[in-house]
Amino acid sequence: MLDTQTLSESQEVLQDNFDSTVFVWSKQKGISPIAVKYAQGVYLYDYDGKRYIDFSSGLMNVNIGHGNQRITEAVVRQMQEVSYVTPYCVTKVRGELGKKMAEICPGDLNKAYFTLCGATSIEAALKMARSYTGRHKILSRYQSYHGATYGALSVGGDPRKLPDDSQQSPNFVHIDIPYRYRWNHDEASMLTDSVEQLERIISYEGPGNIAAFLLEGESGTSGCLQYPVGYLKAVREICDKYGILLIIDEVMSGFGRTGKWFGFENHGIVPDMVTMAKGITSGYLPFGCLMVTDKIAARYNDTVLATGMTYNAHPVGCAAALETLKIYEDDNLIENAAEMGRYVAEQAELMKTKHSCIGDFRTTGLLGCFEIVKNRNTKEPMAPFNAKPEEMAVMSKVGAKIKELGMYTFVRWSYVFVAPPLIVTKEQIDEGLAIISEALTIADAYVE
Amino acid sequence: MLDTQTLSESQEVLQDNFDSTVFVWSKQKGISPIAVKYAQGVYLYDYDGKRYIDFSSGLMNVNIGHGNQRITEAVVRQMQEVSYVTPYCVTKVRGELGKKMAEICPGDLNKAYFTLCGATSIEAALKMARSYTGRHKILSRYQSYHGATYGALSVGGDPRKLPDDSQQSPNFVHIDIPYRYRWNHDEASMLTDSVEQLERIISYEGPGNIAAFLLEGESGTSGCLQYPVGYLKAVREICDKYGILLIIDEVMSGFGRTGKWFGFENHGIVPDMVTMAKGITSGYLPFGCLMVTDKIAARYNDTVLATGMTYNAHPVGCAAALETLKIYEDDNLIENAAEMGRYVAEQAELMKTKHSCIGDFRTTGLLGCFEIVKNRNTKEPMAPFNAKPEEMAVMSKVGAKIKELGMYTFVRWSYVFVAPPLIVTKEQIDEGLAIISEALTIADAYVE
Repeated sequence: MLDTQTLSESQEVLQDNFDSTVFVWSKQKGISPIAVKYAQGVYLYDYDGKRYIDFSSGLMNVNIGHGNQRITEAVVRQMQEVSYVTPYCVTKVRGELGKKMAEICPGDLNKAYFTLCGATSIEAALKMARSYTGRHKILSRYQSYHGATYGALSVGGDPRKLPDDSQQSPNFVHIDIPYRYRWNHDEASMLTDSVEQLERIISYEGPGNIAAFLLEGESGTSGCLQYPVGYLKAVREICDKYGILLIIDEVMSGFGRTGKWFGFENHGIVPDMVTMAKGITSGYLPFGCLMVTDKIAARYNDTVLATGMTYNAHPVGCAAALETLKIYEDDNLIENAAEMGRYVAEQAELMKTKHSCIGDFRTTGLLGCFEIVKNRNTKEPMAPFNAKPEEMAVMSKVGAKIKELGMYTFVRWSYVFVAPPLIVTKEQIDEGLAIISEALTIADAYVE
Repeated sequence: MLDTQTLSESQEVLQDNFDSTVFVWSKQKGISPIAVKYAQGVYLYDYDGKRYIDFSSGLMNVNIGHGNQRITEAVVRQMQEVSYVTPYCVTKVRGELGKKMAEICPGDLNKAYFTLCGATSIEAALKMARSYTGRHKILSRYQSYHGATYGALSVGGDPRKLPDDSQQSPNFVHIDIPYRYRWNHDEASMLTDSVEQLERIISYEGPGNIAAFLLEGESGTSGCLQYPVGYLKAVREICDKYGILLIIDEVMSGFGRTGKWFGFENHGIVPDMVTMAKGITSGYLPFGCLMVTDKIAARYNDTVLATGMTYNAHPVGCAAALETLKIYEDDNLIENAAEMGRYVAEQAELMKTKHSCIGDFRTTGLLGCFEIVKNRNTKEPMAPFNAKPEEMAVMSKVGAKIKELGMYTFVRWSYVFVAPPLIVTKEQIDEGLAIISEALTIADAYVE
């Protein structure tokens, strides 16, 4: 430990954190987190006065942008009445939020089970799907991520589960959905092939054993891997055919991120259950929700719903969520996300002409990423899937440059994410893409 | 749905909740939750102006009592600076809270991993214990409860897991610890027998396969089942002998509830890991913590800690926790819990003389319950373990009477809980016990 007498405020904040706290998904030594003093709009500010444009909206959750004091005011009003009741009591705000959720969700998705985060929404969905259907298996996608608790981690297909491989919860079956940029099919045959494969896997696993198929509305940190056109519609039909519930995970893709309230609305389907978190409060407070249809909820009229948590429907979380939903509407943020998504896509096309390292750019609304390659013909990625630190040499330099130039965003494997808050302007997109462009010149030098 | 034109505010709040939200651990029909309008101190108030004394501190979490506006003020201050940063950034409040946690925890428990709730603390502990030791099994206690996510549910020994029995996560081993009121041993032989049994089970399971032994600091909703005197000390020695980590779950028993900062401090031991939630923020905001020793944290200096969550170390949660900890100290709440716990125990002894249905009363600080029996000699409980609704006839009447008389508390199986906020006064204890006493006359009539 350094002598605190001589530390700047910035160093002191960092030192306290290093001394007394543990960091996620990291080696504890050698990390260099940003010490954030305050945040406003699309910007973070550290204790040394440096500004960072937040191009990943935190963890794709701060959709309304940072520092919106309407949330603070809603939180204070609630805390002056009641901050906590058990889930065996109700509050006015819980009912109001339930009504609002039923209003923004399509179809019969009218019943809200309020949770704390994505993982707790997923865990509740898994249990409810199994108890509702009386079936035990859950299908899901390789490369999807659904959270870090044992159930959510096991149903996920992301390699963050591999360190816990021998301890996985049982009865999850993963399928491989076409990676459109990397499969050598045309769109129509990709759809046909993947749907036929899904039908085969369901028959191998036994349709009567499968409770649900869990899919992200749009995939996020796995590289914004978009579904073949028509895929989710075909999945909806197959699920109906076999009595399999369709659970769509909107934790990352929900709440305007893709230019619609929910990602699945880009695909013309209505799921049986929807898991939500992140954008529901834009991260101002932890909160989540599992929406289910009237039909599913009615099953528990005379049967005990065997799950719960201390912080189900937390009143202050409900208040933050309700105000966040109003902000999406009052400030037209979902429309802005759609429009800015189109602008990002146009600008990214122009960047491709300047940077030979850009293999692909894909975005749905403002959930997008660049895929960086060593060679556009072979499509060999600049860093492989689940890259080890030594395989990240080039991409780590790109990431460091991005940070140096005043941007906070995700650089994972060969992906550089573009997912700013939905309040972002064209000027701010230009500012951010200029930083990414400058950093990508590093990768250009490694193109073979 | 009723015509909302004719509904009172109370009915409207309830109707919105019934229409649009899902209730935990319940049949959705026939429930009658309290619609809480505001809460202050040890009291909840509904929309019809009825007052309820909260004798379970919500879910044994609102330790500082309801409506303390110091928390609101701390939350506002934080939200005016920054409400959310990712776990790859740090904030001043995160470091300050980490320092404070290291200060209140004994021994080398100096590193804080901040979570959202009990379940997420437990899930992190399970993963870390396994990765740290390279072993896969976790020992825990039958009748313990650790949360509802798949890992936490599976490691628990409470029957709330049984509906998900076939989907349990693997490699959890449960042991049966003496129920002191019901075992026909003297204290010394109970200790010897249970320690010898533990040693045998460890040898059957293979000591080199066991990562950790997870135990509650003091048990809660299972009926405040206290350990044989000396048990945790013996466990600590056995764990050391075999290189098994000792994880103590202080989610319910922590933060003054038992008259000490942590329940394990009543037993003269220091664990390797401590899971926390509930009292850490007194429920004002969802928050949790896993404290680990310096030695355990140091293992991840050069090895990736493979877990995390979006809301790790949430700044607003950190601010609420830091202020809550100051309130415990400023208002001497832990000392008050110890003193009021002694008073409750004295008064409960007097109640035994009036009510033949009271088989036992046990409390550690303010974590206590009455155990109601049909017969003091046979000790047959008034409702059995994991009672079905039809087996709860008498106890349900007791519970309904308690509510009618203006008390909110837990009635589970044959247990009536006494766990008020730590700010409770003797007069308020008298008020609450008088309500329980009146309700117990119902049970007295069923004593055989």
